[in-house]
Amino acid sequence: MRTGIAASPGIAIGPAWVVQEVELDFPTEKVDNPEEQLNRFRGAVDKAKTQVDALREKAKQTMGEDKAAIFEAHLMVLDDPELLGSVEQKIKEERLDAAKAVHDVIEQFVAMFEQMDMEYMRERAADIRDVGSRLVHILLGVEPRSLAEMDDPSVVVAHDLTPSDTAQMDKSKVLGFTTNIGGRTSHSAIMARTLEIPAVVGLKTLVSEIQQGETVIVDGIEGKVIVNPTEAELDDYRKRQERYEAEKKALKRLVSEPSVTADHARVELAANIGSPHDAQLAKENGAEGIGLFRTEFLYMDRTDLPTEEEQFEAYKHVAETFGEHPVVIRTLDIGGDKELPYLDLPDELNPFLGYRAIRMCLDRPELFKTQLRAVLRASAFGNIKMMYPMVATLEELRAANRLLDETRAELREKGADFNENMEVGIMIEVPAAAVMADALAEEADFFSIGTNDLIQYTMAADRMNERVSHLYQPFHPALLRLIKHVIDAAHAKGKWAGMCGEMAGDPLAIPLLLGLGLDEFSMSAISILPARKQLKQLKQSEMKRLAERALELGTAEDVRAYVENELKTLQHS
Amino acid sequence: MRTGIAASPGIAIGPAWVVQEVELDFPTEKVDNPEEQLNRFRGAVDKAKTQVDALREKAKQTMGEDKAAIFEAHLMVLDDPELLGSVEQKIKEERLDAAKAVHDVIEQFVAMFEQMDMEYMRERAADIRDVGSRLVHILLGVEPRSLAEMDDPSVVVAHDLTPSDTAQMDKSKVLGFTTNIGGRTSHSAIMARTLEIPAVVGLKTLVSEIQQGETVIVDGIEGKVIVNPTEAELDDYRKRQERYEAEKKALKRLVSEPSVTADHARVELAANIGSPHDAQLAKENGAEGIGLFRTEFLYMDRTDLPTEEEQFEAYKHVAETFGEHPVVIRTLDIGGDKELPYLDLPDELNPFLGYRAIRMCLDRPELFKTQLRAVLRASAFGNIKMMYPMVATLEELRAANRLLDETRAELREKGADFNENMEVGIMIEVPAAAVMADALAEEADFFSIGTNDLIQYTMAADRMNERVSHLYQPFHPALLRLIKHVIDAAHAKGKWAGMCGEMAGDPLAIPLLLGLGLDEFSMSAISILPARKQLKQLKQSEMKRLAERALELGTAEDVRAYVENELKTLQHS
Repeated sequence: MRTGIAASPGIAIGPAWVVQEVELDFPTEKVDNPEEQLNRFRGAVDKAKTQVDALREKAKQTMGEDKAAIFEAHLMVLDDPELLGSVEQKIKEERLDAAKAVHDVIEQFVAMFEQMDMEYMRERAADIRDVGSRLVHILLGVEPRSLAEMDDPSVVVAHDLTPSDTAQMDKSKVLGFTTNIGGRTSHSAIMARTLEIPAVVGLKTLVSEIQQGETVIVDGIEGKVIVNPTEAELDDYRKRQERYEAEKKALKRLVSEPSVTADHARVELAANIGSPHDAQLAKENGAEGIGLFRTEFLYMDRTDLPTEEEQFEAYKHVAETFGEHPVVIRTLDIGGDKELPYLDLPDELNPFLGYRAIRMCLDRPELFKTQLRAVLRASAFGNIKMMYPMVATLEELRAANRLLDETRAELREKGADFNENMEVGIMIEVPAAAVMADALAEEADFFSIGTNDLIQYTMAADRMNERVSHLYQPFHPALLRLIKHVIDAAHAKGKWAGMCGEMAGDPLAIPLLLGLGLDEFSMSAISILPARKQLKQLKQSEMKRLAERALELGTAEDVRAYVENELKTLQHS
Repeated sequence: MRTGIAASPGIAIGPAWVVQEVELDFPTEKVDNPEEQLNRFRGAVDKAKTQVDALREKAKQTMGEDKAAIFEAHLMVLDDPELLGSVEQKIKEERLDAAKAVHDVIEQFVAMFEQMDMEYMRERAADIRDVGSRLVHILLGVEPRSLAEMDDPSVVVAHDLTPSDTAQMDKSKVLGFTTNIGGRTSHSAIMARTLEIPAVVGLKTLVSEIQQGETVIVDGIEGKVIVNPTEAELDDYRKRQERYEAEKKALKRLVSEPSVTADHARVELAANIGSPHDAQLAKENGAEGIGLFRTEFLYMDRTDLPTEEEQFEAYKHVAETFGEHPVVIRTLDIGGDKELPYLDLPDELNPFLGYRAIRMCLDRPELFKTQLRAVLRASAFGNIKMMYPMVATLEELRAANRLLDETRAELREKGADFNENMEVGIMIEVPAAAVMADALAEEADFFSIGTNDLIQYTMAADRMNERVSHLYQPFHPALLRLIKHVIDAAHAKGKWAGMCGEMAGDPLAIPLLLGLGLDEFSMSAISILPARKQLKQLKQSEMKRLAERALELGTAEDVRAYVENELKTLQHS
């Protein structure tokens, strides 16, 4: 039994399909004819482009436009004059074999990018590594066992799975994933969840300890892997697998049911999505709308700003997918930890307390108005609502709405179609906005509480910083009080209040939030059906009392213990 | 008329004493005998040490132990093996003249340190530059006109004033300062305020445009400088000077008066200090206590932790200076932007939301208990109170108090003397603590609201970041609501509430804070007498109505405009 990180739920049982790392042997002698190596190199670049292009096409069909974008990035690497020039220079000046020259330059570039602080740059390092590995394999004439060759349904066992790997796979044959490295947010983990394939990552040395074809169990619920299980283990896990599949099926039956509590209170369960492609998945998981449509994907992995047309198409696509159901588009929330090189954002000592989201958008009205135009135009094609992130003051809301009014007037003049009554709300994620929710409720059509940031600011703790992440406490009574104030302030003005932070999908938080009167819960797609099932068992009247009592407690631990205990008692009664 | 930055209030009129930059001419030819240059270099280092040592002694007498610490840092530079080694190597390998070698190495070190992100490192760059300049002057045999030679009372006009410069000055002869570079927190500005000498900094090119002995007016109130003033200007400024001095004298009469409002409400006006030496200045400015004694100075500019004895002496000194008046010692608030190399603190993406203050202290109990022991032992010598910074949760307060209880028990066992009833409070600077003030008031003896941080977290804006510093809004109604909640929560439990952020000394904020019921206002020493004068003219009952009305407004701008207007009306009634 090996323990790793549960990356995608479910249980897979089947033969191992081991992705062996090929031992690469670089010719190290000086070459006699550098011209010949230069030609080999240029040929390899061309071949690599052809391969990547094919992968991109395949990925577009199987995983959607946005997931295929990574191969655009690979093509950009293969066209990068600095990288190509460095390899050619190395071949000419050091008279290296082309494969060795590529290897050396890639290592150097990767090291440089990995050193950089920004997530964005580290992702670029992964792209360069993937492309470099492709070039080296071509030049050495070694083809690693390709995932495309998989015949029988198998469990993929790999050191790591790159986008190039997953794009090659025939999804109908992959029972599960295990990888030596990676965490819950690594490419392989995200891919596994998207494809609903059980996966365990971070297994360290598994690849070298397993043979092709050996039976393996992947428990993506508890994060366990068993190689060559005993009959008893196989029996046990087959039962668990059945149970999981049965539960999944039972949940699937809730897909088109409304979200109602045991005492007939109606709430809305919506999904958070990061790209148009996710909309379909959200719908299949029973989302009654999109509570948070992040628009950053439009601005990432490219060299300049997206056009109004590109944005319009993306927003329209999601609006149409959801028909009359609401789709809440959040305007650009860039800055902070999300960098865009072409915007030339400043380096900041405390980016989370810096120039980001609405702060930057108000400062760059042309960029912002392009997005506002695209959202307004898309509003003619469905039930679109829009919200501004990181609003801290009434002035910001007013300034944003002034730009929106200008945009509306310009569109009217052009005779463009849009929904004149589109609801415009704000994210509540800055403590000042939570405290002033009563004043903001007069000028916003709705609130969506962004708990991820609201908790960070309220506790003054960066949750990514492991030394203080213990202070990231969703159940802290200070946060619950702020949430209550926001919901009450909205209701007092006849507005609705939702939540689109991770808390909204947490089974322990849902009873509290229901009790506090939250109208809309927006979460990752896979949490929706379990939440709907949970709500059917809860009474809002009881949860109201639960929340009232929780608000009187002094610490997050007290709240958590109290709620856990109450829920247990309710289950047994 | 030249406009710069008002760095220290008051008006000076007198002849200019210009600190000319000496043109340095470095021999650039290769030397024949490097041994000779090595000897010259070592001799210069010895001579520099003797000079710095003398300056340190002089500074100790005139400015106190802590201000003299900068020369300890200079001595450390003169003993630094890496720096000395680099110069010697340059002399040997490049056969450079000693002065040229020093110059090159210093430039290189300074450039390296200045590039670094941390304030601490940039300060080190200034030390190295000061020491390097001293060595070069010795080696070239040029002595810049020394400030020690000043005969008649004059206005010092310099490019910049280093600690070495100010230590040499005869303070009784310096009427005022002007410098080309620097801001309100540069060394020369701080020194001018400490010595109560009018100063204007950031005048760019003044030094090269003024002759020794020319008459100059320094207006440290409005940040203006006039060279060769007309008779009319002289007349005007002599009158302003008189008025300023008269007001200052009138204020000085309030030094030993109590702080009472026009309707006889009593509050406490205390000082924020950063070192024991500041205590005397605070007393001379009428402080009725110390509301914030920062203890970081004990930990800065050194290579290891301060001993219990060093800390005890510092705390005892301030306690004795203030006798029966309260002295609130804040436990170590390091981390965030305040780095200590020897603590080996982690680099953080968002240091303001990171591992700092009580978070670090609870994680390093031995370091923390050393400070707790020193504070407890000093509590036998005056009216010491203690507070923990950055408390976000009840658990942190409890954990800190557990360590305090352990420390008390250990001291009792040893028979050490301390005040068993010392009040122990917390800073309220994390929004979660402000929201939970009612729960915290049950276990803390008092609150001190740290507005500088509380505003930053509440608005999610780093005030040092110029792109978002407009969101640093002390008059934002969200902040006022939190302050009200904190004060009310304290009073409900019979505790007192103070404030030690910059807001407490702001003449526009004082009426509001008085109206909200604040008990203690702690500010920089020079703000105390103006605040006492202002309080005499205010009625608490009226300010209560003012505050109530302000709490109903929606924006900081509305609050500011409302208060300004009301105060004007009151003045005229």
